[in-house]
Parts: sequence; C-alpha cells; structure tokens
Amino acid sequence: GNAILSSYGTTIFEVMSRLSEEHKAINLGQGFPDERGPADVLDVAARAILEGWNQYPSMMGTPELRQALAAHGKRFYGLDIDWRTEVMVTSGATEALTASLLGLIEPGDEVVLFQPMYDSYLPIVRLAGGVPRFVSLKAPDWSFTRADLEAAFSPRTKLVLINDPLNPAAKVFTRAELELLAEFVQRFDAFAVCDEVYEHIVFDGRPHIPLMTLPGMRDRCLKIGSAGKTFSLTGWKVGYVTGAPHLLQPVAKAHQYITFTTPPNLQAAVAYGLNKDDAYFTGLSAGLQAKRDRLAAGLRAVGFEVLPSAGTYFVVADVSPFGFDGNDEAFCRHLTAEAGVTAIPVGAFFVQDAPRSFIRFCFSKKDEILDGAVERLMSYF
Amino acid sequence: GNAILSSYGTTIFEVMSRLSEEHKAINLGQGFPDERGPADVLDVAARAILEGWNQYPSMMGTPELRQALAAHGKRFYGLDIDWRTEVMVTSGATEALTASLLGLIEPGDEVVLFQPMYDSYLPIVRLAGGVPRFVSLKAPDWSFTRADLEAAFSPRTKLVLINDPLNPAAKVFTRAELELLAEFVQRFDAFAVCDEVYEHIVFDGRPHIPLMTLPGMRDRCLKIGSAGKTFSLTGWKVGYVTGAPHLLQPVAKAHQYITFTTPPNLQAAVAYGLNKDDAYFTGLSAGLQAKRDRLAAGLRAVGFEVLPSAGTYFVVADVSPFGFDGNDEAFCRHLTAEAGVTAIPVGAFFVQDAPRSFIRFCFSKKDEILDGAVERLMSYF
Ligand SMILES: CSCCC(=O)C(=O)O
Ligand SMILES: CSCCC(=O)C(=O)O
Repeated sequence: GNAILSSYGTTIFEVMSRLSEEHKAINLGQGFPDERGPADVLDVAARAILEGWNQYPSMMGTPELRQALAAHGKRFYGLDIDWRTEVMVTSGATEALTASLLGLIEPGDEVVLFQPMYDSYLPIVRLAGGVPRFVSLKAPDWSFTRADLEAAFSPRTKLVLINDPLNPAAKVFTRAELELLAEFVQRFDAFAVCDEVYEHIVFDGRPHIPLMTLPGMRDRCLKIGSAGKTFSLTGWKVGYVTGAPHLLQPVAKAHQYITFTTPPNLQAAVAYGLNKDDAYFTGLSAGLQAKRDRLAAGLRAVGFEVLPSAGTYFVVADVSPFGFDGNDEAFCRHLTAEAGVTAIPVGAFFVQDAPRSFIRFCFSKKDEILDGAVERLMSYF
Repeated sequence: GNAILSSYGTTIFEVMSRLSEEHKAINLGQGFPDERGPADVLDVAARAILEGWNQYPSMMGTPELRQALAAHGKRFYGLDIDWRTEVMVTSGATEALTASLLGLIEPGDEVVLFQPMYDSYLPIVRLAGGVPRFVSLKAPDWSFTRADLEAAFSPRTKLVLINDPLNPAAKVFTRAELELLAEFVQRFDAFAVCDEVYEHIVFDGRPHIPLMTLPGMRDRCLKIGSAGKTFSLTGWKVGYVTGAPHLLQPVAKAHQYITFTTPPNLQAAVAYGLNKDDAYFTGLSAGLQAKRDRLAAGLRAVGFEVLPSAGTYFVVADVSPFGFDGNDEAFCRHLTAEAGVTAIPVGAFFVQDAPRSFIRFCFSKKDEILDGAVERLMSYF
C-alpha cells in the first residue's frame, strides 16, 4: 500500500464508534445528529428518486443546486457568486476538501494548518506532496498570535487550510483573527481553503464570517460547505465548494477523477432546503445551542471543566480534575468500557504537542440521550 | 493548480454532452441509460429516505449491502468473500478506482494499462506517482499478444489495471487472454485492479469471467463493480470493491479521506437490488443486446462499418467508409452540429498511437431515440 496513507490509522471517529457499539455505550463521539432531518427535505428527495432524474447530473452539480448555493451566499454573506463558474457540488465536504487539496497543491508547496485539525487534512496534504507547517492554537480560547503566523508562512506557502467554526475546539474565529490571517494570505500571495461545514451552527448570536468576505480575499478563498451539517443529514454526503474560477477549475479537475458527480435526487432536496426561510436556519442553531447548554451543565455537574463552545456539534471537557494520567485516548476507551459513554480524545486532532487532558463530546443528540450520558457519568465518577 | 491534473482537459463525456445539448442533438455520447431504473429498487430507496437512517453509515458500507455483495460474488462467480473484511462500498466506481490507485501505488511503481482506456485512469495513476506502461489493443478484435505483455511488465510492475468488459471497445476478454494476463501478474508478483462495472452487460450468452476467479488470482485482484451500471441508475454513484484484506486495507485508507461514506438510503436499495432473482440480470443484458442489434443494424444501413460489441453500453463504428480525414473528435463535433447526433471519439481513450477513424455510440437508450438517431444520420449521409 501507499506508505503515506498506510501510515495513518483508521479514523478515530470510526474506531470509537465501533468500540462504543461493542460496549453498548452512549455514543457522544462521532459527530452526527440522531434525528431524522427536516421532513420536507426528505420528501423532496424521495419524490426526486421516484419521479426525477436518476442518471449522471452535470459534473459541477445540478444547475438548480448551484443556483441555490449562489443565492445562499448572497442571502447570508452578501456574496455575489456566479453559479455557472464559481460553484461545484461534491460527494460530501470530505470530497470537497480532498479535491481542493489535490487540485491546488503542487509537490513541495507549503501548506499552513491549524492544530487541532480534522484528521483527514494532513494525510491528503502529504499525499499531494504538500509540506505542512503548523500553527498550534492555545486552549482554552484556542488563540494564535502574529508571531505564530510569521513562523508558519513563507514565500513557499501555497495555501492555508482553516476550519471555522473549528472542530473539535468549538471555536468561532473572530473578525480580528480572520483579518490577521487575511493579511498573511495576501502578503505571501497564497490561497485559503475554508472548511466552513458548521457555518450555520454558531451560537449566542455570534455571526459566522467567511474568510472570503474580508477585503482582498474574495478571489483567494475556496469556501466549503456541507448539506449533511446544514440539514442534519450527514449520511447524504452532499458538499459544495464556492470560489473564483481560477481556483475552482483545478479543483474541478480533481473532482472529475475522484467521484465525477453526486446523486441528483439528493442534490434536488438540498437545493430545496437551501431556499428555506430564515426560521429554519435560526432554528437549527437555537436547537443545538440548547443542547450544548444541557450537556455542558451536566458535564459540569459531573465535575468536568467545560470549555466554551461557540459553534459546531461539540463541547470540549478538561479531564484534569479527575487526576487523570495523560493519555486522552486511553481515557476515552476507559470511559466507553467502564462508564458506558463515548467521547473523542482531542489529542487525535494534533500532529505534535498534543494536549492530553481534553476530550470532545458531541451534543447533537436527543435530550434523553444527553441526559442518559450525564447520568451514567454521574454514577461512574 | 496541480500540474498533472491541470494538464488534462475536461472529460470528453462532459464536453460532448454539453455540445450535444447546445445543438439539441440526440446524445449517443456519454454512457448512461435513459430509463427510470427498476421501480422496486427506486421504491426501496425512497422508503429508506423517508423511514431509514440518513446519518453516516459505516465507512466500509452498510453491513446489509456488504453481505449482499458477498452473496452476489458467490451466486454469479462462485467466490467465497468475507463481507466483513473483503468488501467496501464507495461513492461510485470512479471513487473505487481512484481509491484503489491512490491506496496501492507508491511513487515510482509501474502500472500496466491497456489502451483504449477510460479517461480517468491515467491522470490518477500519474497523480499517485505511478509510471504507466501501455499495452495497445489492436482493432477490430482489440487483441494483445504475449510479446505485448513481455514489453509492458517488468520487475517494477506494481499492478495492472484492466477494464472487462472494455469501454469503449465493447470487448469481453476471453479466458485465454485472462490466463495469459494472470500468468504475468503472478510472474511479476503484481496485483490487478479490475474495473468490471459492465459485469452484467455481456451479450450472446458469453460469460463474464472475473480475473479474480482464475487460479492463483483470488488474492491478487481488486474487483470493482457499479450499481449505476447494474441497475441503470448511473446518477446514484454507488460502487464497490471486493478483494483480499491485504489489498483492500490500503484502499480503505484512501476511501476514508476521499469520501468516507456513501448515502445509506441508496446503499439499502442497492442491497435489495443485488438480491433480485436471475430474471432481472438476464433481462438487463437481453434488453441491451436487442438495443445493440437495433443500433448496429441502423448504423450499417447508414454506411458505417460496425465493429462487434460483446458487452457494455457501446458499439464502435469505423467511419473510414465516409472518406474521413483522420480527426475523430472533429468528426464527432461535426456530426453533432450537422447531423444532430452525438458520438464519442475513440481516440480520446488513447494516450499514444490513437486510431483515428473510430467513434463510439451508446445504445442504452429508448428504441425511438435510437431510431431517431439513425434517421438523422440517414438523411445526413
Ligand atoms: C466523517 S466522521 C466524523 C464526523 C465528524 O465530523 C466528527 O466527528 O468530527
Ligand atoms: C462518468 S461519465 C461517462 C460515462 C461512461 O462511462 C462513458 O460514457 O464511457
């Protein structure tokens, strides 16, 4: 097998989900909602399967969905997007990310990555021949400094990969942070691949600010979104990339050879969903915010130190109060087997200098599941 | 953008489909059926969307579909396949192929490819750092010799990529040819990636023989299949790879980072479909065989020399009788614009020494569409 890919283990999400099943634990590990998704969106998909087109759609995505995505960019972020040349539909945001990296990176290019990071980033950067340069965000607010960027950027920087809102840290980048980043991207004539799959899952009235909307950044960014996250249908694997034609074209080349197209029936339903009224989108974040508060309160009652969660499906807990020995993955395995609750070790999102006392809980679950998990933890600790 | 990917144009299928639309031509270019697909399979998918699981399924595919794939291998080919460790579901056969190549090829490995070949093969081989070695099949029977293999294989050969039944040549490899190939794969301790998406679209009572079933080949082959082709639902993008764990594991690593999973509702319907009785599968090939005969007869009546078609959706015509000038793509563009019928230049499937008088017609279309195309060609020529 390919040595780069083979050097990485099975994704921590799959590993912990399997372990969770074995132990019949409550799985607050892998990030997915346990609800059905919006009934009207499901209806449109079912109807499209029964009555619509089930053959190859256009490689870039159905015109209908690309138009809906352009309208979505206008409505939420004031972006003027040409649906014909600046939007591409992919088989999930994972494919969007991989196509972006394989399409843009030339062997030897440097790529700036923020730790903690989603576990597919580094293997694909390396497979593409990219040279990773890391910026380590510092808990509890997962901040970074100008000096951190000075150390990471260089004339060989091709692109920076940013995940905002940030999984697993549940951080939403501030405008000041994004401005600092934009300054470096422009100074080094680089690009940004912006994984914004949680764009609609931001709490406490905070805005989500696409890096693309900052001055000078419109044509330097690819913005990646996810219908799975926006419609609580993670299994659908419908993602999208938006960006200037000069950036999108090479990415489309990669997409052409990776999956070529995405099911048109699911695309039809996502197009419908994106056109839903504002109440849908505010309802999504309000519902998840209530779940965040519910789980965070429970975890605090158990004795965890709970870090702030400004967005995503996740909340991070510091387990040092339990006099814990420094292997967060062992702790999560132990918690699954003994307490019957599964979390994800935050260390798995680091390549170097991993903090070892943080674990991530997913709160996009039914209230009774969240309560059940807290009860189990209560009686264990 | 990445120089390797950027050096390839937009896929000829998309290019000709767009041109066809512009000219309101009858599109016998891109290979897809224009029917609805089996109603019962569509029903299962719609029901799964409305009532089933819409979140991430297992990375390897749903147990239900993997079990159906193992049973399918037993039923049609007598293969004993462990669904737990030897089957993986992908987002289309294109992804299966890309994951196989990225997962298995190490930079510098030699890869044996047969011309004509599907247009995604070479870019991905090169992206993975593989060194292509070509075997050119010779029309009209698209044959190869022992000497051809001697010239292509070497101690650096990592794998051979074979498409059987072969698009666009409509060739089905004979047992003798497969035995010769198997001999070389074993002699050079190599692997085979077998793109068998048209496994159920073989005509005239000929068997499809997976290379995997030949002596000594069980653990040297990855066999790729496609629900899109087997159920006439090309837009669904459900593919699969079967093979020994030591081959499948590195491919699963690539899959994990490329798409991670495939919609569970579509997987449920494909599992149902694979369990359909023999009449479904014989009906599929019988129906397409009748369409092959219909179109081939029409093309002959127009004056084309029509090559034999033993499988796939396609028939190749030799256009030399029309005193044609040697640019098959120009001919196809001309045919689209002037005669209102779109075909695909077979030269697009070659990297070197392309024959220039062959064009490929797709016959997986309604009879009236096929008849309409023949009428248009009749009145043009
Ligand atoms: C693709 S499986 C992982 C889901 C996810 O985004 C997460 O748990 O972080
Ligand atoms: C993936 S689009 C091309 C469909 C096809 O297999 C063909 O036309 O050869």
